[in-house]
Amino acid sequence: MAKHLEEHELDSVSVYDGGLLKVWRDTVRLPDGSEAWREYIKHPGAVAVIARNAGGNLVLVRQFRYPLRLALLEVPAGKIDPGEAPLPCAQRELREETGYVARDWTYLGLIHTCVAYSSERIELFLAENLEQVGASLDEGEFLDVVELPIRDALSAVWDGGITDSKTICAMMWVQRLFGAHC
Amino acid sequence: MAKHLEEHELDSVSVYDGGLLKVWRDTVRLPDGSEAWREYIKHPGAVAVIARNAGGNLVLVRQFRYPLRLALLEVPAGKIDPGEAPLPCAQRELREETGYVARDWTYLGLIHTCVAYSSERIELFLAENLEQVGASLDEGEFLDVVELPIRDALSAVWDGGITDSKTICAMMWVQRLFGAHC
Repeated sequence: MAKHLEEHELDSVSVYDGGLLKVWRDTVRLPDGSEAWREYIKHPGAVAVIARNAGGNLVLVRQFRYPLRLALLEVPAGKIDPGEAPLPCAQRELREETGYVARDWTYLGLIHTCVAYSSERIELFLAENLEQVGASLDEGEFLDVVELPIRDALSAVWDGGITDSKTICAMMWVQRLFGAHC
Repeated sequence: MAKHLEEHELDSVSVYDGGLLKVWRDTVRLPDGSEAWREYIKHPGAVAVIARNAGGNLVLVRQFRYPLRLALLEVPAGKIDPGEAPLPCAQRELREETGYVARDWTYLGLIHTCVAYSSERIELFLAENLEQVGASLDEGEFLDVVELPIRDALSAVWDGGITDSKTICAMMWVQRLFGAHC
């Protein structure tokens, strides 16, 4: 379908192997036969969770995002550990960040967050029938759990209260799944 | 509002200064007084454009995204040049990528694409009353212009045809602005 757009790897070099960020610089063959370089982050993948509590509210987290120097309202989310499958990762992240376990899980879809310079892909899940068992944050992780009526979370997309892209993507699903009831 | 979540910079070091990616590693003071490091990309910012043509179709682009080794369907978008304001950047990117100029521009909102490890912010605009004047792609840039009924673009969010996060965010705006008419 898009053969005429494809770029082919000629060479791949690790140029920065940080504690968090793994940067690669590849030489590629462009569709017109010429050569170019592509610099990008190899990312292990992540998950995000739309969690809806018994009262029909969304369970969100407010977290300081240092690269932006801002605290943002987001759906619970996190990176996949080596060897971990997306669903167990989603269950782990929801529990660690919010203290909730969910009886019902539904896979919703895939989001590519940062297509120009990262291989990151986020698998989005819906978690329902929640039970509170107590959060257990990673060391050095600080966040507020914010339980918000769906109507307020949707408004926050329009008034700038929610700007995180994975969370806006999640809100589009929320609107589809629950928008008629709020 | 979120003082108790704030992290404060103690030291900031450029650890990778690539052709595209500028990686920094900062030492920070966490809310509990302990120290940690934060590794992230400093990004100049970007724009994205919802362009709606005379027939009411959306003007999208299909582009090979090397970090993912996939061709993705996206709203026209691009990085802000040094000293450039967001609106002129949006006008430039729309014209370069699709050949369209627009008489009417509306600012919609802000998207943070990659909050865990990049300072990137995308300003989202709506462009209407389009006129085709011919595209002028950057050297080494290859893409297809795809004009799609709004209904099809919205379906693509649900069936995996659109996975790019800024484009899904844009589709949520499209649904709000034009969803009733499709």
